[in-house]
Amino acid sequence: VILDQIKQVLDPPDGDLKGVRVLVTAGGTREPIDPVRYISNRSSGKMGYALAETAANRGAGVCLVSAPTRLEPPAGVKLINVETAAQMHRAVTELYPRVDVVVKAAAVADYRPRVVADHKIKKKEAGLVVELEKNPDILLELGRQKQHQLLVGFAAETEDLINNAREKLINKNLDMLVANDVTMSGAGFGSDTNIAKLLFPDGRIKSLPMMDKLELSDRIWDEIVKLRKTVPKDAAD
Amino acid sequence: VILDQIKQVLDPPDGDLKGVRVLVTAGGTREPIDPVRYISNRSSGKMGYALAETAANRGAGVCLVSAPTRLEPPAGVKLINVETAAQMHRAVTELYPRVDVVVKAAAVADYRPRVVADHKIKKKEAGLVVELEKNPDILLELGRQKQHQLLVGFAAETEDLINNAREKLINKNLDMLVANDVTMSGAGFGSDTNIAKLLFPDGRIKSLPMMDKLELSDRIWDEIVKLRKTVPKDAAD
Repeated sequence: VILDQIKQVLDPPDGDLKGVRVLVTAGGTREPIDPVRYISNRSSGKMGYALAETAANRGAGVCLVSAPTRLEPPAGVKLINVETAAQMHRAVTELYPRVDVVVKAAAVADYRPRVVADHKIKKKEAGLVVELEKNPDILLELGRQKQHQLLVGFAAETEDLINNAREKLINKNLDMLVANDVTMSGAGFGSDTNIAKLLFPDGRIKSLPMMDKLELSDRIWDEIVKLRKTVPKDAAD
Repeated sequence: VILDQIKQVLDPPDGDLKGVRVLVTAGGTREPIDPVRYISNRSSGKMGYALAETAANRGAGVCLVSAPTRLEPPAGVKLINVETAAQMHRAVTELYPRVDVVVKAAAVADYRPRVVADHKIKKKEAGLVVELEKNPDILLELGRQKQHQLLVGFAAETEDLINNAREKLINKNLDMLVANDVTMSGAGFGSDTNIAKLLFPDGRIKSLPMMDKLELSDRIWDEIVKLRKTVPKDAAD
């Protein structure tokens, strides 16, 4: 069903991404503790939604797999709503063979509660301990299974930005990584602007000034268009 | 400052709550684990915002202390934004002596992480354990300190609704409790409708059919207007 849906996206306008099938993920996943409580993160989804919108404007066929956000979906984009990292994992895995570019802007929870209570946990006198287990590392899997796709990841860090970002770029076999220090004013979660560094496997780093997330999206797509000229483009289908 | 702000609310329209100073809480608090991750709950804030809106329409001076929601604040209501249970506790405690009615519709986290990490916790191979400690029980404190105020609470339960609700009503010295089973379709979190039971200290229970949250709000204010006729009204200031 999902595979059909991406084909239903309206005929895209002309542009340098015309005919390119793009998968963007966005938002912060929610990992339930019980029917009422969950663990989440501060991702607003704005960066991913901006990436989806600009890609559609440049002619791409865009599928946006979104964890919960407060945002209206951009026009001309196929939206697939998910809540947990496991649901995100399923949706992305199913779509992956059929897309040309994946930009993973979602903040997928690294951990989920090991046990999800059937009923709301009652408040007791003492404290409570929540045991967490690791979620599947979606980006790592996509990097390992990569064939024709271009794979772009994000790193939101609060310390040692470049080293953490470079490690992620290499470990996950990415073609580009967008890194930002979310402790900086004007960067990261909830903000309409971002201050990003673009890292590439050949060691290049492009440091961008603070800019609107829509403008940053266009800069990211500019780089992807360039990268696509150096990567085999024949799709799996 | 907050005490001044509630006086700045525009002159309310005429109505059966004219001149009544109302404090409504709404939304679900967020309890940080680190700068990025937090624990929250599924409260949409819709019930609290509907209560604030209807009270203002009936002439009350309304202060709405709100944890994060996706909602636009109602017109004519003084909005105070908070994030954590501790912030909610401070705001409500400061306002409490100066209001006549408190309706606590917020879903305040019972627990918060015992330690909040300064930096984003890095993903490690193994699992992770989050130790939680209890937040202050705001409603219990308000009940103990109650003087002239009318105090209304909510109970969102997933099992044994009436017994859990009655225990909360008595333990917290409430004048009314609005109970709803959030597992029922058309009730509770995120929904525009609710299916509520109103419990009173004298043992009465009013079971209401499914209705819009604005309509339910008016029913709740109807009951509060009745209760105010039997409770001393002289305020502390």
